[in-house]
Amino acid sequence: MNTLDLLIRAIARLPGLGRKSATRIAYHMLASDRSEAQRLAELLHTLHDSIIRCSVCGSFTEDDPCPVCTDSGRDRATICVVEHPQDVAAMEASNEYHGLYHVLGGVIAPIEGVGPGDLAIGSLVRRCTEPEIHEVIIATNPTVEGDTTALYVAQQLENNTNVAVTRLALGLPVGGDLEYADRLTLARSLRGRTSLGRD
Amino acid sequence: MNTLDLLIRAIARLPGLGRKSATRIAYHMLASDRSEAQRLAELLHTLHDSIIRCSVCGSFTEDDPCPVCTDSGRDRATICVVEHPQDVAAMEASNEYHGLYHVLGGVIAPIEGVGPGDLAIGSLVRRCTEPEIHEVIIATNPTVEGDTTALYVAQQLENNTNVAVTRLALGLPVGGDLEYADRLTLARSLRGRTSLGRD
Repeated sequence: MNTLDLLIRAIARLPGLGRKSATRIAYHMLASDRSEAQRLAELLHTLHDSIIRCSVCGSFTEDDPCPVCTDSGRDRATICVVEHPQDVAAMEASNEYHGLYHVLGGVIAPIEGVGPGDLAIGSLVRRCTEPEIHEVIIATNPTVEGDTTALYVAQQLENNTNVAVTRLALGLPVGGDLEYADRLTLARSLRGRTSLGRD
Repeated sequence: MNTLDLLIRAIARLPGLGRKSATRIAYHMLASDRSEAQRLAELLHTLHDSIIRCSVCGSFTEDDPCPVCTDSGRDRATICVVEHPQDVAAMEASNEYHGLYHVLGGVIAPIEGVGPGDLAIGSLVRRCTEPEIHEVIIATNPTVEGDTTALYVAQQLENNTNVAVTRLALGLPVGGDLEYADRLTLARSLRGRTSLGRD
């Protein structure tokens, strides 16, 4: 098997890519300037050395603690709890949240052998015993596991700290279509309906 | 901008990938074992040194001439003409063709400034003056440029050699749906209809 086939195989293993798209990417690399492949190779080579986990919040960062954790301009009374480091990037992209983060590193999933002890819940509780923290927004995914984890985390925080615990709203996605909304989403968006005009 | 952002940018420039899928891939890399990123880096690093163009047919190969051009077990009387090296891989995957190849390196596209002189047409004509070549199958894409190029190549071969020139059949794709077939494809599949049962 030659380098090209090996490269196609390696690319096809990446999430969201199959053999066809991997082939297309590999041939594109070959047809383009050598420097493009070299640059990507260099970035991949140094990736694990330059990007580490923030010892406070668990995000990926080049410096420890991460720029968010050390930014005195942010709202240091609020912590947003997410499953994965990439969720931090998604929240940041919304430009709506200006507080701190805490990455759990996954969700409670007994079938996959992931219990509360495998997640960064203890360190979250410890962070929330600091008097400056007022609110924890739980932003785990709206899935069975995400909801279970949210409930568990909320319970731990309520038992051990004085922070207010909230959860991201569920409802119709912006630009969505009522006709195509699933039953559960529609039910949750009804239950969580907000008043118009008078508040 | 840190390594992670640079990596996401570099991946997002690849064909078929956008910022979201690039982000997903980059975080997957970070979350997986370091060896996976290292292996991909190594393959990309050596890609342009280990894969070259075959001096006979123009395919990508590790050895020159390529394994297809030197394989005495293949049908050496037929040459299949394709636009790009990846088309050779597609033809090979069909398991139906056992002859030789010739990669043009593109199509005639005056708007993009690509004329016949920029394609490997001269070398194809030279190959076809060899008495062992009997047939040239033109397998350029069924697009305006692909058809123009096919006609031009056919003319060159007819003027300068004695080979028979054929073109891949046009028609409905296997597993396709008449209802969703476009007008032109349907027209071509009608014009090229084949007899059933009696031949």
